[in-house]
Amino acid sequence: MLKFELHKTEGHARRGTLTLNHGVVETPVFMPVGTYGTVKGVLPQSLREMGAQIILGNTFHLWMRPGLDVVQKFGGLHRFEQWQAPILTDSGGFQVWSLGGADGKGRKITEQGVHFASPVNGDKLFLTPEVSMQIQTVLNSDIVMQFDECTPYQTGGTLTTEDQARQSMELSLRWAARSRDEFQRLGNPNALFGIVQGGMYTGLREESLQQLVELDLPGYAVGGVSVGEPKDEMLAIMAHTPHRLPAHKPRYLMGVGTPEDLVDGVACGVDMFDCVMPTRNARNGHLFTRFGDLKIRNARHKDDERPIDVSCHCHACGSGFSRAYLHHLERCGEMLAPMLASIHNLHYYVNLMREVREALDEGRFEAFRQQFKADRARGV
Amino acid sequence: MLKFELHKTEGHARRGTLTLNHGVVETPVFMPVGTYGTVKGVLPQSLREMGAQIILGNTFHLWMRPGLDVVQKFGGLHRFEQWQAPILTDSGGFQVWSLGGADGKGRKITEQGVHFASPVNGDKLFLTPEVSMQIQTVLNSDIVMQFDECTPYQTGGTLTTEDQARQSMELSLRWAARSRDEFQRLGNPNALFGIVQGGMYTGLREESLQQLVELDLPGYAVGGVSVGEPKDEMLAIMAHTPHRLPAHKPRYLMGVGTPEDLVDGVACGVDMFDCVMPTRNARNGHLFTRFGDLKIRNARHKDDERPIDVSCHCHACGSGFSRAYLHHLERCGEMLAPMLASIHNLHYYVNLMREVREALDEGRFEAFRQQFKADRARGV
Repeated sequence: MLKFELHKTEGHARRGTLTLNHGVVETPVFMPVGTYGTVKGVLPQSLREMGAQIILGNTFHLWMRPGLDVVQKFGGLHRFEQWQAPILTDSGGFQVWSLGGADGKGRKITEQGVHFASPVNGDKLFLTPEVSMQIQTVLNSDIVMQFDECTPYQTGGTLTTEDQARQSMELSLRWAARSRDEFQRLGNPNALFGIVQGGMYTGLREESLQQLVELDLPGYAVGGVSVGEPKDEMLAIMAHTPHRLPAHKPRYLMGVGTPEDLVDGVACGVDMFDCVMPTRNARNGHLFTRFGDLKIRNARHKDDERPIDVSCHCHACGSGFSRAYLHHLERCGEMLAPMLASIHNLHYYVNLMREVREALDEGRFEAFRQQFKADRARGV
Repeated sequence: MLKFELHKTEGHARRGTLTLNHGVVETPVFMPVGTYGTVKGVLPQSLREMGAQIILGNTFHLWMRPGLDVVQKFGGLHRFEQWQAPILTDSGGFQVWSLGGADGKGRKITEQGVHFASPVNGDKLFLTPEVSMQIQTVLNSDIVMQFDECTPYQTGGTLTTEDQARQSMELSLRWAARSRDEFQRLGNPNALFGIVQGGMYTGLREESLQQLVELDLPGYAVGGVSVGEPKDEMLAIMAHTPHRLPAHKPRYLMGVGTPEDLVDGVACGVDMFDCVMPTRNARNGHLFTRFGDLKIRNARHKDDERPIDVSCHCHACGSGFSRAYLHHLERCGEMLAPMLASIHNLHYYVNLMREVREALDEGRFEAFRQQFKADRARGV
């Protein structure tokens, strides 16, 4: 089940409400990533408190561990990981692609699917559109992603050619149709999204988009970005593709990005984002704030009594924890450092999107975007 | 400031209330250990929610990092680590002892104090009773421990002789007097505890105790246990020494122990306990429960839908997290595994003492102790 209501637009930017089987999601939205059924270092309770509406799970990783038999016993991922709100799962395609290594020797792609060795125990595995749908049906995620091949930016050390990108894109289209057929056959009650591919070639992106639209899926994603391309090429695809997707359906830009990317992505017509940056960077002591980014290991924070960001209401900033304390925890390798940093960064991303929604509601998104960029450039 | 009221006794067991500068502590009590100004893997908020009343800090470690200049800027440890309730700090003596290594070559003990190299940067350091009091005064801990020499169980590979233990105990007594003098000179507004030493020699323990009582300190600890001795020797000292301490002052058994040790310790007249076991074992997947202990890595938990302990009200057990989920998190090396396990284990220890207090209030401690042991032996 998926219902999408569009409330307001400003340029390409959109303010909507997405209703899914496990709840309602106000868009634009940032979705924290919970690869193995846990957003790294954060209690589900903390995610709820910061206002997270929907989180991701990774089909491939969860297939490996804990395995489908375990998740099936729990009736799906929601009860297993104690997250009662919506969940989106990817298809496994991106992981199979990234596990293959730069030379792609770790996997073999055929028309039928992808052969590869389990990174956990070396078992020979075969992932197909049908298997991906079967796994995601057991996971019972609210949004299921089609199985696709993520077109790499480089192939064999050189830029992927248009011909290579076309072959990959067309394979993903055939896998989209097979994904839809299997999704329907399984009677999956959730919502299947298609993924636009085509590499950095806008003509291919348009072909991919047109043919996916013909499948009449309830939502569409833009994939194959954040795969090693220069930033300006990612931004070019972000500017090109999302606003061409059907206006009455949700649009998801996969794996993007910095706070600036999110706000610009909204301006390009994107409704949904996910990225590991807030949690991964938190574990490296990189904190995002309204007034720019901050490396907590830097000696200048040693005795700084201020919170990470005075304007932030997250548990870390709102409870009196200082930069000096976080600096100390980080230096000592204490778990509380990534715990507090993850809460802060996720809160920043989740609430940046809340501010974006308020700006859209009030018809002042462009002014918000300018102020946001000025604030971020100010320095913390 | 320290006020200790004794409400009830049952045999040697005691039910009391300890009033300190930062709050009230109901005894018997378990005190979570927060070495570097953080109880490892647990938010202060979680500590409050589980009912922790007082936590420890380690003078030696905090002296090394973040250093006194930083803590001084925050007016003490409470604001620095955002823990507004009481804090007890050790004296640094145990860390200097354990850092010296088995052969003791890492430090040199003189009448004046201990010379050693900083484990952080190799700097030559000199810790004395006076310096320990100066550090603990900056930390502003509610309970300050005297600087002592922790008498080792073995010296140079053989059992510490009575003569060696006497020399060590007598040094600690002289350091107790110097600690008290410096504590008073500094005008420290908190409470100084003396530490009974004497190794495994009960005659020495009695001499140490008598002379410490003459200093008329507001509380006393039994130190030099859990230092590598066989369990029965620890239990012999626990049975011998605590109940001989002044009845109207709080008694603290340092560094002990298992849940059984705590309940037996109460029966021996102990009011206060600390131990790293609940947090350290949590990080190794060892969970304490009412019905015995549980290794969450064990394959038998793979698809077990039950919580760690059905009778437990901690955040991990009360929020629907299953053994299967914790097993999965542990296998994947996810931070949420030690986070939930630490919350559970600390909750178990803290609330075991709450149950002990209730049993004492109702005059049924011995019955409680028998039931506790039967439950623990039942198996989870």
